[in-house]
Amino acid sequence: MIRSLFFTACVSILPLAALADPLPSWNDSTSKTAIIEFVEAVTDPDSGDYVPERDRIAVFDNDGTLWSEQPAYFQVLYALDILKQKAEADPSILTSDVLKAAVAGDMEAMMADGLDGLLEVINVSHGNTTSEDFKASARDWLISATNPASGLTYAEMTYQPMVELLGYLRDEDFTTYIVSGGGIDFIRAIAEEAYGIPPWQVVGSEGNTSYSVIDGVPTVMKDGGISFVDDKEGKPVGIMSHIGQRPIFAGGNSDGDFQMLEWTTAGDGPRFALLIHHTDAEREVAYDREGHIGVLSRGLDEADARGWTIVDMANDWNRVWTGTK
Amino acid sequence: MIRSLFFTACVSILPLAALADPLPSWNDSTSKTAIIEFVEAVTDPDSGDYVPERDRIAVFDNDGTLWSEQPAYFQVLYALDILKQKAEADPSILTSDVLKAAVAGDMEAMMADGLDGLLEVINVSHGNTTSEDFKASARDWLISATNPASGLTYAEMTYQPMVELLGYLRDEDFTTYIVSGGGIDFIRAIAEEAYGIPPWQVVGSEGNTSYSVIDGVPTVMKDGGISFVDDKEGKPVGIMSHIGQRPIFAGGNSDGDFQMLEWTTAGDGPRFALLIHHTDAEREVAYDREGHIGVLSRGLDEADARGWTIVDMANDWNRVWTGTK
Repeated sequence: MIRSLFFTACVSILPLAALADPLPSWNDSTSKTAIIEFVEAVTDPDSGDYVPERDRIAVFDNDGTLWSEQPAYFQVLYALDILKQKAEADPSILTSDVLKAAVAGDMEAMMADGLDGLLEVINVSHGNTTSEDFKASARDWLISATNPASGLTYAEMTYQPMVELLGYLRDEDFTTYIVSGGGIDFIRAIAEEAYGIPPWQVVGSEGNTSYSVIDGVPTVMKDGGISFVDDKEGKPVGIMSHIGQRPIFAGGNSDGDFQMLEWTTAGDGPRFALLIHHTDAEREVAYDREGHIGVLSRGLDEADARGWTIVDMANDWNRVWTGTK
Repeated sequence: MIRSLFFTACVSILPLAALADPLPSWNDSTSKTAIIEFVEAVTDPDSGDYVPERDRIAVFDNDGTLWSEQPAYFQVLYALDILKQKAEADPSILTSDVLKAAVAGDMEAMMADGLDGLLEVINVSHGNTTSEDFKASARDWLISATNPASGLTYAEMTYQPMVELLGYLRDEDFTTYIVSGGGIDFIRAIAEEAYGIPPWQVVGSEGNTSYSVIDGVPTVMKDGGISFVDDKEGKPVGIMSHIGQRPIFAGGNSDGDFQMLEWTTAGDGPRFALLIHHTDAEREVAYDREGHIGVLSRGLDEADARGWTIVDMANDWNRVWTGTK
């Protein structure tokens, strides 16, 4: 009886709360309207599109979707800093042209091999550490190192509108996951404080990991190497491994997210997909079809036909960074 | 104001609820007392052992811990049934002595190679199907095929005391995970209805999986083969991959769970580990130090010194199966 009285009281005050704008950093736009209409439809028990709370699973890419990926993936910038530190202590670790280029700051030469070059740098810089130590190191760097272009720490270069979207979805009883091509432990180092997303709701690329008792201490070690690449076709695979169920909402920004959005929206019932289009040369970097990072081409070509929402960063967001007003 | 009045009302009726026995299928025993004392300590904000809800992570092995593993792992019995069906349609798939022994019902010959034989049978029987079809097939089998010894379906051979323990922990704001050497999709096929554990809280061994668009349909396929073995040293690795944080409570029954319990209990603060000891020859099968399945030897030797709780199934449980009173 007390419970149902309370429930009635709650329901009666809900409309007041609903009047507040859940996405204040989003300008009135087709993308904002589409998001809110979708969320209202799937959370309305009287709607034909109603989805039970249990099935309200939303997945988001990270680099270029929840935080910036310019001038390079933050994890690569972190890896370069760590590699330089390690090479100062022991120059013999620089066993390849890619590693030498990385330490010399020659990004173009380092990226000449594309993903392989990145992986080599990450491998040498991230390996042979405990999972806990790695995350502590990554977090320290993210909250203290400064991005030269923005003057913000990397942790401050999360996108305020996307942090609001994550919170809005959770307020509406969605569960929000990160599904990133970036390293799972790198993201976990900051995801809870930056996005409110705990470690068990982060899916990402993974390195080889082993368990052993070292000097009497049970330890999980990061051994270097890559055991799983959570990108492109890997994203639905990573989702099925970690979540075990198809999401109803997916957000990304590049063609590396295409398959995740394709698979999400191919399910039965209401589905939502969005792509962040980096149109904002003034506040960030304008890029899409070309370059080494965040290429968005097929997504731009097919979004309309597939009913995916394109977010025009320059026009749809009145604020970009969490770190500035 | 309404909220705090309601909170006060809730608190005032809580002691009544607390009087009900949360573990009615457990006899009064040192193991039951140890469990309840631990849970009361970590959930009491005034206790020095208090653990916030966020960190109340409990992990459980499945085979021999949450359901029976006799006369063989249920997944193996399922695989044998499927293998027989496939071999009837196409006998040429029986390309090895292990597979021929399996179809002939010669379990001893099939198990002669230990885990490798099992994996071969599982590989041939589970591969080349979609994730969804596999889970539907596994669920159908679990709720309809009957275990000859017990006369129960396999889904009814979950342990009632452990189902109660899972519910008790969740009532006390723990999050309960399965961390099994068994296949992640096989367990997910039934875990939510059997244990109240959704797919994203199941960790297990994994097969090779791929995503592609097949005849226009985005599809996640199980391709056969094994990509991750979630057993022994693999269990802490699987936990760190899927959960990303060390649990505070771990339950198992065999030396395959040793490292999971070792790692869980090596963390700071209050920790709990239990091992189910299969002492019940009358209601189940009595086994521990010898055999192909569920060997428990090191765990028995070291449990006392490590402060781990041994559950004596014959004496500590007044009911075994969920499927019978």
